[in-house]
Amino acid sequence: MPSEFALITRYFQRPTPSARLGIGDDAALITPSAGMELAISTDMLVVGTHFLPAADAEGLGWKTLAVNVSDLAAMGARPRWALLACALPEADETWLARFTQGFFACAEAFGVELIGGDTTRGARAFAVTILGEVPCGQALTRAGARAGDEIWVSGAPGQAALGLAHLQGKVALEEPQRSACLAALPRPQPRLALGLALRGLATAAIDVSDGLLADLSHILSASGLAARLTLDVEAVPTFAQHCFLAGGDDYELVFTAPSNRHEEVLALGEKLGLPLTCLGDCRPGPAGFLDVRTRAGEPVAFSTLGYDHFA
Amino acid sequence: MPSEFALITRYFQRPTPSARLGIGDDAALITPSAGMELAISTDMLVVGTHFLPAADAEGLGWKTLAVNVSDLAAMGARPRWALLACALPEADETWLARFTQGFFACAEAFGVELIGGDTTRGARAFAVTILGEVPCGQALTRAGARAGDEIWVSGAPGQAALGLAHLQGKVALEEPQRSACLAALPRPQPRLALGLALRGLATAAIDVSDGLLADLSHILSASGLAARLTLDVEAVPTFAQHCFLAGGDDYELVFTAPSNRHEEVLALGEKLGLPLTCLGDCRPGPAGFLDVRTRAGEPVAFSTLGYDHFA
Repeated sequence: MPSEFALITRYFQRPTPSARLGIGDDAALITPSAGMELAISTDMLVVGTHFLPAADAEGLGWKTLAVNVSDLAAMGARPRWALLACALPEADETWLARFTQGFFACAEAFGVELIGGDTTRGARAFAVTILGEVPCGQALTRAGARAGDEIWVSGAPGQAALGLAHLQGKVALEEPQRSACLAALPRPQPRLALGLALRGLATAAIDVSDGLLADLSHILSASGLAARLTLDVEAVPTFAQHCFLAGGDDYELVFTAPSNRHEEVLALGEKLGLPLTCLGDCRPGPAGFLDVRTRAGEPVAFSTLGYDHFA
Repeated sequence: MPSEFALITRYFQRPTPSARLGIGDDAALITPSAGMELAISTDMLVVGTHFLPAADAEGLGWKTLAVNVSDLAAMGARPRWALLACALPEADETWLARFTQGFFACAEAFGVELIGGDTTRGARAFAVTILGEVPCGQALTRAGARAGDEIWVSGAPGQAALGLAHLQGKVALEEPQRSACLAALPRPQPRLALGLALRGLATAAIDVSDGLLADLSHILSASGLAARLTLDVEAVPTFAQHCFLAGGDDYELVFTAPSNRHEEVLALGEKLGLPLTCLGDCRPGPAGFLDVRTRAGEPVAFSTLGYDHFA
C-alpha cells in the first residue's frame, strides 16, 4: 500500500513552471502579474450529490476542474493555478490514475497548473480552488447589467439535464442528440474562449450551473433589473424546453451586452464556432423578475427556476 | 427550510473590505500588495476522519480555519483571505450558527476575510483554501535548512494526542495538564506571531500536523540533510513522550536556525511568551535520517514517525 506522500508524488505532482513553489511545502508561492487582479473560486463535488459511486473516474477528474474553469470564464479571467483537496475511501491506484488523467487533461486544455492540495481518507469528495488573472477593472461581474442590455446564452443549455433524463429512462433521445447530450454530462466544456473575448463587450456574465433562468436571475438581482425573454416554446414548455430553461450542469455562459453591439456578439459566435442566442433584454422592474413569453406573446409558465441544494 | 442562497447570506457573508469582490459572484477578486508573493494552501476536514459526528460545531469551525492559518504561519506568510467549501447533511441552522461563530472567531483573531466558498449537500466535509502574503523571497520553505543549523520546536507538541488518549480512556491525565491537553484538541492555536517573526531568522519551518518527527523529516528530506536530536526521554519513550514525538494535530512550529542565532531565538520565545526548545541540529547524512538520543547518549527507539492517511 503506497503512503499518502507516495500517492501525491506519483499522481498529483507535475511541473509548475509558473509558480515559484508548487506541491510539497506548507503552501504554494505565486507572483501574480503586474496590472492584473486575481479571480478566485472554489467548487466541491461530493459522491451521491454530484456524481454516483460508479462514475467514470476519468470523466470525473475532468469535470472536477472544468466546473472551476467555467467560473473563471464567467468572470472573463484566464485560469492559471489550482489546488485540489480530495477525500478518498481508499488508495485505489487504478482509480486515481484515471481520475488524475482526466484532471490533468482538463488542466492542459485550459492552461492550469496544480500547485497544491490535500489528500485524506473519507467518502469521495473533491474541492478545487482555482486562481486566474484578469486586467484590473475588466472582470465580468453579475452586477454590471444595465436596462436595455440584451441577454445572450451560448450553446444549447439543457443537454446535460436531457442526457441525465435519458440515462434515467425518463426520455428516449435519438441520435445525434443522444450523443451530444450524453457527452455533456461527464465532460462539460467550459466556455473560456468566449469568456475572455467578452471582456469589454459583455456588461455582466454568469455560467449556467444551476439552470438558465436561475442563473440569469442572479445577474438580474445583482444588477437590480427585471427581464423580458421571448422563447421559441409553447406556453407550457415540453420536457426538452424545461431542460433548456432549468436544467443545470451545462456550463454555458449567460451574459448581457449593450443592444448596439448585437452584431459584434453575433460575429464573435461565428468566429468561435459557438452559437450565441439573444433571448431578450433587461428592463427596469423588480430585481430578478423574469417575464418569459412565447413568440406569440403568451406568458410561459415554469414551476422551478433551477437547482437548490437545500430546497 | 431556507434556501442554499439564504444560508450563505445569513451565515457566511461578512464584510470583506480588503477584497474588491467577495462572496456572491462566480469568483472573488483581490489585488495582492506590491512586492509580495502570495502563499496559498488548502486543507480538508472530513467527518469520521478528522472529527466525530457529534463534535462541537463551534470548535470545529475554529479548527477548520486554524489548521490553514497554521500552514501560512509555517511559511512566514500573513493570512489575508480564505474560501470555504462545505458539504452538509442538512440545513441545520443551529449547527451552522455555531460552526460559523467558531470560524469567524478564528478569522477575526488572525485577520482573515472569507471571500468565497461553495455549499453543497453531503457527509460533513470542509475544505478551506487560505491566501496570504509574504515579502518576495522571504517565505520559510522546507528546503532551506543547512548543515549545522539548530532544530527548534515551539510549545509542547503532543498535547492534542494526549488529550485524545485521555478522552478515549487510554491515559488518565491530572490537572492542570488535563485542561491544557483537552483545550488543544478543538481550538488549536496557530503560531502566527512566531511564524512572522521567524522571517529572516529561521532557515526552514513546518507546522506539526502529522507529528514532530514526521514533520521534521519533511524538512530534512527537502533540505537533503540528516539530524541528531537529544531528548529528555528514556531509551524507550513513555506514552507521553511518544505523543511528543509522534502525536499530530498540535500545530506547533518546527524550524531550523543558524546556531550563531541561538540567543536571538531564545529572546524571541521570551518576547512571545512561548517556550522555544532546541532539540538538536542538522548534519550531513542520508536525507531525512533521524538519530534520536537520550541525554546519556543512548539511541531512542520509536515505532512510527507519525500519521499517514493511507498507511
